[in-house]
Amino acid sequence: MNIALDVMGGDHGPAEIIAGAIEAARAYKNVTISLVGKPEVIQAELARQNATGLNLPIVPASEVIEMGEKPAAAVRAKPDSSMVVASRLVRNGTAQAFVTAGNTGGALAAGILQIGRMRGILRPALISPFPTHRGFCVVLDIGANADVRPEHLQQFAVMGSLYARHILGIVNPSVRILSNGEEAGKGNHLVVEAFRLLEQTPGINFQGNVESKEIMEGLTDVVVTDGFTGNIFVKTAEATAKLLQQVMIEELTAGPISSVGAFLAQAALRRVRRRVDDSEYGGAVLLGLSGLVVVAHGRSKANAIRHAIRVAKQGIEQDILAKIQREVSRQMAEGTDLAGSESMDMFNQTSTLKKETA
Amino acid sequence: MNIALDVMGGDHGPAEIIAGAIEAARAYKNVTISLVGKPEVIQAELARQNATGLNLPIVPASEVIEMGEKPAAAVRAKPDSSMVVASRLVRNGTAQAFVTAGNTGGALAAGILQIGRMRGILRPALISPFPTHRGFCVVLDIGANADVRPEHLQQFAVMGSLYARHILGIVNPSVRILSNGEEAGKGNHLVVEAFRLLEQTPGINFQGNVESKEIMEGLTDVVVTDGFTGNIFVKTAEATAKLLQQVMIEELTAGPISSVGAFLAQAALRRVRRRVDDSEYGGAVLLGLSGLVVVAHGRSKANAIRHAIRVAKQGIEQDILAKIQREVSRQMAEGTDLAGSESMDMFNQTSTLKKETA
Repeated sequence: MNIALDVMGGDHGPAEIIAGAIEAARAYKNVTISLVGKPEVIQAELARQNATGLNLPIVPASEVIEMGEKPAAAVRAKPDSSMVVASRLVRNGTAQAFVTAGNTGGALAAGILQIGRMRGILRPALISPFPTHRGFCVVLDIGANADVRPEHLQQFAVMGSLYARHILGIVNPSVRILSNGEEAGKGNHLVVEAFRLLEQTPGINFQGNVESKEIMEGLTDVVVTDGFTGNIFVKTAEATAKLLQQVMIEELTAGPISSVGAFLAQAALRRVRRRVDDSEYGGAVLLGLSGLVVVAHGRSKANAIRHAIRVAKQGIEQDILAKIQREVSRQMAEGTDLAGSESMDMFNQTSTLKKETA
Repeated sequence: MNIALDVMGGDHGPAEIIAGAIEAARAYKNVTISLVGKPEVIQAELARQNATGLNLPIVPASEVIEMGEKPAAAVRAKPDSSMVVASRLVRNGTAQAFVTAGNTGGALAAGILQIGRMRGILRPALISPFPTHRGFCVVLDIGANADVRPEHLQQFAVMGSLYARHILGIVNPSVRILSNGEEAGKGNHLVVEAFRLLEQTPGINFQGNVESKEIMEGLTDVVVTDGFTGNIFVKTAEATAKLLQQVMIEELTAGPISSVGAFLAQAALRRVRRRVDDSEYGGAVLLGLSGLVVVAHGRSKANAIRHAIRVAKQGIEQDILAKIQREVSRQMAEGTDLAGSESMDMFNQTSTLKKETA
């Protein structure tokens, strides 16, 4: 098993990424982790961090896609960037997965343009763990597709269910559509149509619509939504949590016994952060391509990188892509609406890519 | 000035609504507050709460639209409900505004079906204050229209700007579109098209797209969005804040000096809640009808009802509807895209209403 790791992405630079690769190489003996990036940087870090005897080959890539770049344009303009080289390793079968903590848009563009969609998949979707009061659920799409059709949401439901079952180990995961009301019939046109399709989709445990409050309470295992709404949902929750933590600290340290308050607040917030910390969940996965793409948070430290590699490894071991492929093919053969009919034009896949190429 | 108050709506019952009416009648001498509801209930409360000498006429309404009812169906089935009677007072010119803490969908349906749209307005929108780190901004639409077109968002931007200027007193309020990225070109098709329209719209201070994080930081005065996304945005922020408060209490009371932690947590949370408390902002306003409709939170207590009445009073004094009407007419005359061309069929106005009548 070979996993291509983009060494050049992420807020903390190659040192942290390589530290994660070393942790993973020690923990998962049967995995080859190909370090893709500037050889001199990688060699220096490997020497500094004592990686002797580990299975960490270097694959040279001279360029880097930076955080601010336009994804599709950058992927085209930088064929020797670490992301594009890593994607190419997956496309030509050298690697089975590609892991990065770099620019999410760049990772999507590299994955879609270089690796390509799985047969029968209309739109690849970005799936991510999301913290609830009870644990974690998964949400997809959180940003690969700003505009989708009901049959896309149907495929997201199928992919999300298989992911929750085989990667997170949830038996018969419940699936719900994010909406502005729980009742059937609530939602925009997209949600109302998707609701009808999901009711008729075999092999998933569809439970109806869900509102944010119930997601936070842990009511559902899989949340299905378009990439625009999903992205705003996830970012709104993150931003609110951050603001509220800040305001809590301000208020706890404003009282008459502020030093005690500050002490308790710091300790409590550390525990809160640990409870909602998704670094052990390995980041988001772009599902629906011919190879796995794992997009770790830009802020990932070594531990998060190790878990992102673990998710890729588990996906390969569980053969999640073949399971998705099988389910999609089966449903196509049964004549359910699952695959619909759509132009396979690569550039229709994400509106971000479309807009750039227009 | 006459404001029709639905006495039968809200979680706390007529006692609290009437207490709010009494507070308002004492504070705002020139306002007649018509109490719409069951006369025997209202009379008993007025007697119990000492309302002698106040300008609080009773307008009988024998029915009540309950929280669980389907809005448009309930409005049709209950012509003598407090919401419908109150709306009718606005339609026939007896009252200039209608205030309720009842079922939001019912209030929208009563407003749209009974009062009707302002000339030139394509879609009425629900505008609401939203707490940020710096204070409050306003968000519209937060739920009246699940599916909209770019020209609807353009009108929301115009209505939101006028509201922020004349009701909240913000000079040259900044306007941004809620999106999944700040850069121009980010967003779904709706957002991308609306962005282009807003750039060309005179009389508003359009600043581009905005993400949740920047809204929380207080970057913008007016947030423009469709009612589906806006509803999910507001509810996600509310649900996250609630969950995080709960988790903070759990964690602060879990430590070794849990009683001190509990004491500090309660005090701090009280202050946090006061900072994000929107009861003084009077709730949401349905803009774009021939009369004002103010929808206070279901959980409103007397103080929040008084502020909802204050918002209605201010809207009437500022003649906000005439200002919106003038701006819309002016832009129509100038040939900007503002009003587009759309069937004026009442039942196309909100997808909720449409679905029910289909």
